[in-house]
Amino acid sequence: MLSDKILNANSIAIVGASKTVTKRGYQAIRILLEEKYEGHIYPVNPKLESVLGLKCYPKVSAIPDPVDLALITTPAATLPSVLEDCGKKGVAGAVIIAGGFGELGEKGKELENQMVEVARKYHIRLIGPNTSGMINLHKNLNLVGLRDAPKGNIALLSQSGNMALTMITEAKVKSQVGFSYYVGVGNESDISFHEYLEFFENDPNTNAILMYVEGMRNGRKFLQQAYQTTRKKPIILLKSGRSAIGKRSAGSHTGALAGMSEVARTAFQRAGIIVVENSDELLPCAEALANLPPIKNNNVAILADGGGHATIGSDELTDLKVNLPELSEKTKEKLRAILPTAASVANPIDVAGGADDNPVILAKCAKILLHDPNIGGVLVVGLFGGYSIRFSESLAFAEEDAAHQFGKLVLETGKPIIMHSLYNFAKPHSLDLLRYYGIPVFDSLELACKAIGVLAEYGGYLRGYKAKAKFVFDMGAKAKPRGKEIMHRAREEGRTALLEHEAKELISLHGGMVCQDCLAKSPEEAVAMAAGFNEKVVMKIVSPDILHKSDAGGVRLNLKDPDEIREAYNKIMENARAFNPNADIKGVLVAPMAKDGLEVIIGTKIDDQFGPVIMFGIGGIMVEVLKDVVFRVLPISPYSAKNMINEIKSVKLLDGFRGRPPVDRKALKRLLLTVSEIIGSYPEIQEMDFNPVILYEEGLNVVDARIILKP
Amino acid sequence: MLSDKILNANSIAIVGASKTVTKRGYQAIRILLEEKYEGHIYPVNPKLESVLGLKCYPKVSAIPDPVDLALITTPAATLPSVLEDCGKKGVAGAVIIAGGFGELGEKGKELENQMVEVARKYHIRLIGPNTSGMINLHKNLNLVGLRDAPKGNIALLSQSGNMALTMITEAKVKSQVGFSYYVGVGNESDISFHEYLEFFENDPNTNAILMYVEGMRNGRKFLQQAYQTTRKKPIILLKSGRSAIGKRSAGSHTGALAGMSEVARTAFQRAGIIVVENSDELLPCAEALANLPPIKNNNVAILADGGGHATIGSDELTDLKVNLPELSEKTKEKLRAILPTAASVANPIDVAGGADDNPVILAKCAKILLHDPNIGGVLVVGLFGGYSIRFSESLAFAEEDAAHQFGKLVLETGKPIIMHSLYNFAKPHSLDLLRYYGIPVFDSLELACKAIGVLAEYGGYLRGYKAKAKFVFDMGAKAKPRGKEIMHRAREEGRTALLEHEAKELISLHGGMVCQDCLAKSPEEAVAMAAGFNEKVVMKIVSPDILHKSDAGGVRLNLKDPDEIREAYNKIMENARAFNPNADIKGVLVAPMAKDGLEVIIGTKIDDQFGPVIMFGIGGIMVEVLKDVVFRVLPISPYSAKNMINEIKSVKLLDGFRGRPPVDRKALKRLLLTVSEIIGSYPEIQEMDFNPVILYEEGLNVVDARIILKP
Repeated sequence: MLSDKILNANSIAIVGASKTVTKRGYQAIRILLEEKYEGHIYPVNPKLESVLGLKCYPKVSAIPDPVDLALITTPAATLPSVLEDCGKKGVAGAVIIAGGFGELGEKGKELENQMVEVARKYHIRLIGPNTSGMINLHKNLNLVGLRDAPKGNIALLSQSGNMALTMITEAKVKSQVGFSYYVGVGNESDISFHEYLEFFENDPNTNAILMYVEGMRNGRKFLQQAYQTTRKKPIILLKSGRSAIGKRSAGSHTGALAGMSEVARTAFQRAGIIVVENSDELLPCAEALANLPPIKNNNVAILADGGGHATIGSDELTDLKVNLPELSEKTKEKLRAILPTAASVANPIDVAGGADDNPVILAKCAKILLHDPNIGGVLVVGLFGGYSIRFSESLAFAEEDAAHQFGKLVLETGKPIIMHSLYNFAKPHSLDLLRYYGIPVFDSLELACKAIGVLAEYGGYLRGYKAKAKFVFDMGAKAKPRGKEIMHRAREEGRTALLEHEAKELISLHGGMVCQDCLAKSPEEAVAMAAGFNEKVVMKIVSPDILHKSDAGGVRLNLKDPDEIREAYNKIMENARAFNPNADIKGVLVAPMAKDGLEVIIGTKIDDQFGPVIMFGIGGIMVEVLKDVVFRVLPISPYSAKNMINEIKSVKLLDGFRGRPPVDRKALKRLLLTVSEIIGSYPEIQEMDFNPVILYEEGLNVVDARIILKP
Repeated sequence: MLSDKILNANSIAIVGASKTVTKRGYQAIRILLEEKYEGHIYPVNPKLESVLGLKCYPKVSAIPDPVDLALITTPAATLPSVLEDCGKKGVAGAVIIAGGFGELGEKGKELENQMVEVARKYHIRLIGPNTSGMINLHKNLNLVGLRDAPKGNIALLSQSGNMALTMITEAKVKSQVGFSYYVGVGNESDISFHEYLEFFENDPNTNAILMYVEGMRNGRKFLQQAYQTTRKKPIILLKSGRSAIGKRSAGSHTGALAGMSEVARTAFQRAGIIVVENSDELLPCAEALANLPPIKNNNVAILADGGGHATIGSDELTDLKVNLPELSEKTKEKLRAILPTAASVANPIDVAGGADDNPVILAKCAKILLHDPNIGGVLVVGLFGGYSIRFSESLAFAEEDAAHQFGKLVLETGKPIIMHSLYNFAKPHSLDLLRYYGIPVFDSLELACKAIGVLAEYGGYLRGYKAKAKFVFDMGAKAKPRGKEIMHRAREEGRTALLEHEAKELISLHGGMVCQDCLAKSPEEAVAMAAGFNEKVVMKIVSPDILHKSDAGGVRLNLKDPDEIREAYNKIMENARAFNPNADIKGVLVAPMAKDGLEVIIGTKIDDQFGPVIMFGIGGIMVEVLKDVVFRVLPISPYSAKNMINEIKSVKLLDGFRGRPPVDRKALKRLLLTVSEIIGSYPEIQEMDFNPVILYEEGLNVVDARIILKP
């Protein structure tokens, strides 16, 4: 866990202190003084005696008192020596503003490594480099230079200073929420996202964590930490760079089919993170999640005054997969008793002008709704806050009364209310009162829907939480001696590819399938093996030097007769030798012909940021034409395996189609878990490709399996 | 075309005038007086002498001077008699506020019909009923009671008073745009959407038309009008009710597979309408389209100051299918000459602080970009308007200078600029200047992207505009005598279903396929026909009383041998009689066995709102599992037929897959056009279902065809 000396530093050295007002080394000191930082400030510059009335030191190690943190504003090249000096002083952390490191290519990376080496030597933890800085708002410790950031309960982690400015500006202008911390993560060259997460998870001033991410150095550790953190505090995250140009702009590079953002999105969601796609939604979601209880049953009631908003809200919540359940007769009756006859007491409820002369009616409706055990939260849409503006000024008091009632209702029922109001712009007192109770008010109907949608999403995650895979391998724990032997032999023979029968044996060892394949070393062995199967067989060349067996004439199908088999053996051998005279030929694989069934493909690879990931898809056109595939970061739990299967768009094919029987989902699930177990057992595996796997009504057959080891 | 007396009335009668301040009949008069309506106001109420100083008349026909329009605020039941009186006076139009008509079921519908009948008798055109009213802002003719609606160049047509209030509030609070008209369309019981469109198309004060729609009485006429209007003025439309609950809330009902909103969306887009899904986007899109030239080549450059906004903007524009082209070397060179070395001159351009001490740099960059012939528009994202706030107050003048340059650049190049600014909230003068030039400013990055996205979409529509089908049938023009005969015979025999061979003959008549099917009336005829094909045949029962032929044992496949054919004929007959002893049996269809190929399905039905629509999909799992189908309102042009084919998600299957040859797209296109022609030739057709159609490398085969006539 990060030391308190870093984000809660009691003393700060400003390296590069300056008297020039446009310089960061001046501004930093001025803002610390103006905002009344509670700790000690030590300007550092060998050329100056004092800055803004504070004594200036020639170097950090010359400061007589303890120094927790150094803000370093000097250029990239100075960093190794400045940190060396900081290390001698025993500084715990440094915020490094300069750019010009890893993001500039090889030379910058070298300098970055050199800097990190010095930091490691002296146990100095680094924020940045290439960061706009850090703010601890509860301690008035502002190392960024952004003024007026509102104080509150949201911790902000951003890889873009611009986006931090956007969030801070929005918080100031559009809401009453604020921040506990802002950290510009920068290049993550030392402290990574997951360490900040852990710190905020344990920070009493933080209720929710808001993140803007363009790339991540250590995705797996981040997932592991997030998985812990989200059980206590919500994380709201926007990851940009989903388009090719966006990726280029974010300076990262990824593959084609296994698009990075696709893996990231589902992985983040599995760790309980609320992933948003639109930057307008970031702060509203954080505001709702930081201040309101999540929805326990995914059921929401819309309380509207007029049809248009009710209709749009219904569409939007349906898109967000939130239920708008029918109301019980009892609840409808209670609503009818206080609403005019023109009102609609279906869900969405439309009071149809029923609050025009008394807005308290809306609070009464909300009370009826939230006391219905089937309703998990209420979205109020339309005019609240504006009845006094629209109809009669005297209604302002009734609106304030209603606001208090709404607020208390949340406290009393533990269920959230979200408010949409067309009169937000007029800043009526009633809406400020709602915010006092933690009820956010949005002038956008869609954002209001999204806010209640994420309360339902987070509630659903917490409700469905099971001890899942946690993104942690117990590496090697389930390795089999025979499996290790297979790896070992391949290594000894200088191979990075397992032979087909080796790969299949590995799958068998871990319970993924019953493997009947045999390796024949002579025509007669092949005949004997085929006789044992008592059905038609396929024969395939086995050689580490022949990867594409069909191209080499190394595959023969539908064989039964002993003469056929003998002839096939000899022909395959002949073809193989013709194809590659130097090929190391291990023999010919003999296996029963695969019966017709549903083809699927399963693969794994190592993702740059998240490590081993698994892919699953239904073979043929579904993968090749429609790219209908699902990814998961490994390991997976039985629960994730089931979800993977169900997330395939063409999942209905598994249930049988055009007279076909449904396939054996259990066997498929078992195979996915086997793949996960194999990856967790043999760290030397680079990638696997099972294509096709044929699923039957009972059982399955891994027809071809390729396993590649790390070089 | 709507008379000017309705939306530009010079004299108004207020029926139901009142002295009670909360009544509509009082408020309407007060607001007309306060807003200085340019025409004459005549209060009407038999019980009053005067209202607000104006002489009150007992009835409309008692007013001595001409009356253009009546605003009727009395209850639903009074409408027939009030309109009778208006008719005697020669009133041209009436705005009917009362609800309680068609939306309340049968009884209300009866009253509505009665009211419309009176109106028709006297040629009175009706706005509403069940409307919030109408405003003509250029004439201060406000019949709604909403105050402070800003005057401008956007005509607003809405089926929800709430949504009109939302738009008007947003215009007032967030932009400098305003409205020429607002019309609450209500139940559309007389004047329909398309008539308002036509009026606005010809209104000199209107540059763009903004619509909120929940349902439409006359979708086809609307499409026909929109198709004309959008060539002159953009239409921006949000249609709600896409979810089941949203639909219920909107009070409309539609089918399952051919979801109404799906047909509507593509139909609207074909008519050049900008369809948005999010109500937050409505006004921003209208603002951009009303005030800026569209983008001619779909190419945009992003001009950013910082990475985060550039990355998010790139993702967003990519999602919106806008190109962010590479810049030419010449353009890059010019940019490099004025930007710091840290700047990125790829697209997105990141000035990287290069405007911090002189925001005019941004205008210079925009000039370089817009003078590049490959760049169609510029999106500026980030801090403009806030350099003066963030860095130095003196920069305000430079920002104003830059704003003038941006504005003139648009005029000079005929290319648009859209501005995103984090400092919009501070209302700096420079941003007001931009709006003076018609450049909208958004504090939401996503809305800024959407705004430039719709400029590209509209430009693309205008550029790609061809004389298309216009949603108009030249009904019956291409009917064939033989086709009419087939219809006629079916009618005579009391059938609403064409027999299979009749349906196929019809397709042949209109050039969709070569039909080889023959109807055999005896075993020997069947043998002779089969001999003529010289390949294996299929035989199927033909009876209007047996629709599911296989279930009745009425289909036999793969027949060639004469004995087999004789036996099959007799067996089919026997089965058919056993299945339904009273069946009217026409004979047995003999046709060559369909060869293997790619199965597709084509169908038509009559949509409640748009009339005949066509559906196309690739057969089997693509339709049944993935619902991968495309709809079009008929008739279609060759251009639409091509687009339909290309819009199928699984379109790659047409190009050949796993060794299959590509299919004959021309034949498929021809068949789609044949379907369109048949529907346009025989108005008695209710629906058609061709399933399957098998596509080959050359040609196609409509294996089964069902055509149902209207009852």
